[in-house]
Amino acid sequence: MLQSQLPNFIRKESPRDEEAVSARLLIRGGFVDKLASGVYTYLPLGIRVLKNIESIVRKEMDALGAHELLMPVMHPKENWEKTGRWKTLDVLFKIAGRDKKEYALGPTHEEVISPLAQKAIFSYKDLPLGLYQIQTKFRDEPRAKSGLLRGREFLMKDLYSFHASTKDLDAYYEQAIKAYKKVFKKLGVDTVLVEASGGTFSKFSHEFQVFLESGEDQIVYCKKCGLAQNREINDTREGGPCPVCGAIVSIRQGAEVGNIFRLGTKYSEPFSLTYKDAKGNTHPVIMGCYGMGISRLMGTIVEALHDDRGIVWPAEVAPFDAHLIELPGTNGKAKKLYKELIEAGIDVLYDERSVSAGEKFAESDLIGIPVRLVVSSKTGKKIEFKKRNEETTKLVDETFIRKYFKK
Amino acid sequence: MLQSQLPNFIRKESPRDEEAVSARLLIRGGFVDKLASGVYTYLPLGIRVLKNIESIVRKEMDALGAHELLMPVMHPKENWEKTGRWKTLDVLFKIAGRDKKEYALGPTHEEVISPLAQKAIFSYKDLPLGLYQIQTKFRDEPRAKSGLLRGREFLMKDLYSFHASTKDLDAYYEQAIKAYKKVFKKLGVDTVLVEASGGTFSKFSHEFQVFLESGEDQIVYCKKCGLAQNREINDTREGGPCPVCGAIVSIRQGAEVGNIFRLGTKYSEPFSLTYKDAKGNTHPVIMGCYGMGISRLMGTIVEALHDDRGIVWPAEVAPFDAHLIELPGTNGKAKKLYKELIEAGIDVLYDERSVSAGEKFAESDLIGIPVRLVVSSKTGKKIEFKKRNEETTKLVDETFIRKYFKK
Repeated sequence: MLQSQLPNFIRKESPRDEEAVSARLLIRGGFVDKLASGVYTYLPLGIRVLKNIESIVRKEMDALGAHELLMPVMHPKENWEKTGRWKTLDVLFKIAGRDKKEYALGPTHEEVISPLAQKAIFSYKDLPLGLYQIQTKFRDEPRAKSGLLRGREFLMKDLYSFHASTKDLDAYYEQAIKAYKKVFKKLGVDTVLVEASGGTFSKFSHEFQVFLESGEDQIVYCKKCGLAQNREINDTREGGPCPVCGAIVSIRQGAEVGNIFRLGTKYSEPFSLTYKDAKGNTHPVIMGCYGMGISRLMGTIVEALHDDRGIVWPAEVAPFDAHLIELPGTNGKAKKLYKELIEAGIDVLYDERSVSAGEKFAESDLIGIPVRLVVSSKTGKKIEFKKRNEETTKLVDETFIRKYFKK
Repeated sequence: MLQSQLPNFIRKESPRDEEAVSARLLIRGGFVDKLASGVYTYLPLGIRVLKNIESIVRKEMDALGAHELLMPVMHPKENWEKTGRWKTLDVLFKIAGRDKKEYALGPTHEEVISPLAQKAIFSYKDLPLGLYQIQTKFRDEPRAKSGLLRGREFLMKDLYSFHASTKDLDAYYEQAIKAYKKVFKKLGVDTVLVEASGGTFSKFSHEFQVFLESGEDQIVYCKKCGLAQNREINDTREGGPCPVCGAIVSIRQGAEVGNIFRLGTKYSEPFSLTYKDAKGNTHPVIMGCYGMGISRLMGTIVEALHDDRGIVWPAEVAPFDAHLIELPGTNGKAKKLYKELIEAGIDVLYDERSVSAGEKFAESDLIGIPVRLVVSSKTGKKIEFKKRNEETTKLVDETFIRKYFKK
């Protein structure tokens, strides 16, 4: 894309009302815009990142054999009363329609998917079943101050699994953990699997936490034996003894990017979600749920991968493959290179604008495309090649670039 | 996909609480599920159709040079007070957060995009600019009784254009009309461009209407001169004289699938959305907006294209390219064919289930995949080929099928 054609939402000044460095960089770089506390617009550069994250997640969910659907934002009050959460979940946004009925704006979808699943689950032959969506959710957060890390309106992937036995749930749960690890690896974020409070069915749930100074969770972490527990279930202090191996634990700050639960029959029972076994006997379906914060991941990646000059996107989620910068006096060489790279299937942002070299380089570092290509009167027949996460530059030819991006 | 793997949301009975034939067929076919009046889940088959529609729309918006973004559902009350619509738009759903602030659930996004655009528009050089999204919208409809044709929660494509002159807006408006016509042609729906009430800036807005008995709008239509006006601006009765050519007009029912407006400075003025001309003088930006109902199109296509047995999807939006049905006694021939077609890039739903031939055929007609392929002991080395919109069958070989789907 020609950079002159891209609407320029880049800002020189850092926003004053954002505490998180990820929010400041994403706003300055023109990826997101803040409309209200915890409520953001994804701008043209930002939606490219979001779609890349979505497509990585979708691929692994499909590989699990799960089926995508799209459930509504508006949930009837009755559904939430059936589980008791209309009153107990204090982050529920509620609306009333002109029909005098009340609705919750869904922060999660157990209350919708459980009665829905009954329409496709009759016998043990219909199990296991995995259904997921990538959908906008709402939580009336008291402290929405960390940019995309804690939104009031945010994008989630939520997968629900349905089983005839706890053994089958357990096997699926392990497969889901593997799928999550694959996703996070592709996204370039290091996660730690952390035990957290589990609710009714299992002792623990599991969170995928990214250790970050700016994370809002506290994790009791033992380097020696690998114990990792959310402080909500383990009140050992920094320097205290590990309850498993006795070594000294540390307390790490974590940003939670995924959370998975064995739900058991907690939601199938109130909605009479049952199946018939081979003998014709009826049993409640056993469920699991697997959340992943899509917009939160966008923030977390930036929180983890940035430097003083801006964002350092991993190649898999970057808005473009390469940033081609043209400096004066190149006699159409940059334009020719741009066309050839595009034809070779490389997604290039081509800065052909008449602005200073300093401004072009600063903006390029800020928006963090993984590879920068510079064509100037000084580079002769070659092109200056620099990775965003390295300091060294080298002069290369077009063949090198094509080979580098060969997928 | 193996049909045994696809969760089976197909229903034998027609839902009692749906008036529109499209809603009845989409629910029976397992494309959507109704959660509340005007609020639907898109099931695995349905989301495939939705994504096909989205991708056709996205392609034409990109070809217009517009940039995709994603704006929030939650809009601060202040924005809607600035335009006066907080009080005047009676379909606005409103929520209050624990921050004691009020928000509208966006039914349209002029109140968000106008202040947003000011962050990328400074001079005439930044114009024209086109920004669009495909996003979930909310309207507290008094009569949400037509399935996807009138949802309270629905998916829209909304494009906003920004210009330095009315001449430039007019040129863009014509280009947008062409893009819309291309989209509807690809989707297989015949639309008529209808004049409707235009608001402040231009005499008329334009609606893209599909003539359908079940449509909720009334259109004054003159076959002779082509006059087409919504009855809200023309109260000629059936059989009355055409105000343009004097011929006899008819009143047709229409389902509106797109609506485009010249907004002028209606929204740029309250939000001080301005640009500087070449001399440095400041002017309000001139705007246009272009809506298209994505989920409504899904309903409209079914409303227009169905028969007694079920849906007749156009190939471009169908959930699969072909429906391969295996009957008993084929010795693995169907399975082999399935693998080969999938390898050839043809998206096949393969019904390998042990259910009766009658049930397979009835379900196949109901879900409306454009091509049905039957492999049975009677077809020998050949395959029975039938188009959903034709009655004739013929025996073909695999080469014929591959050629048929060559894109």
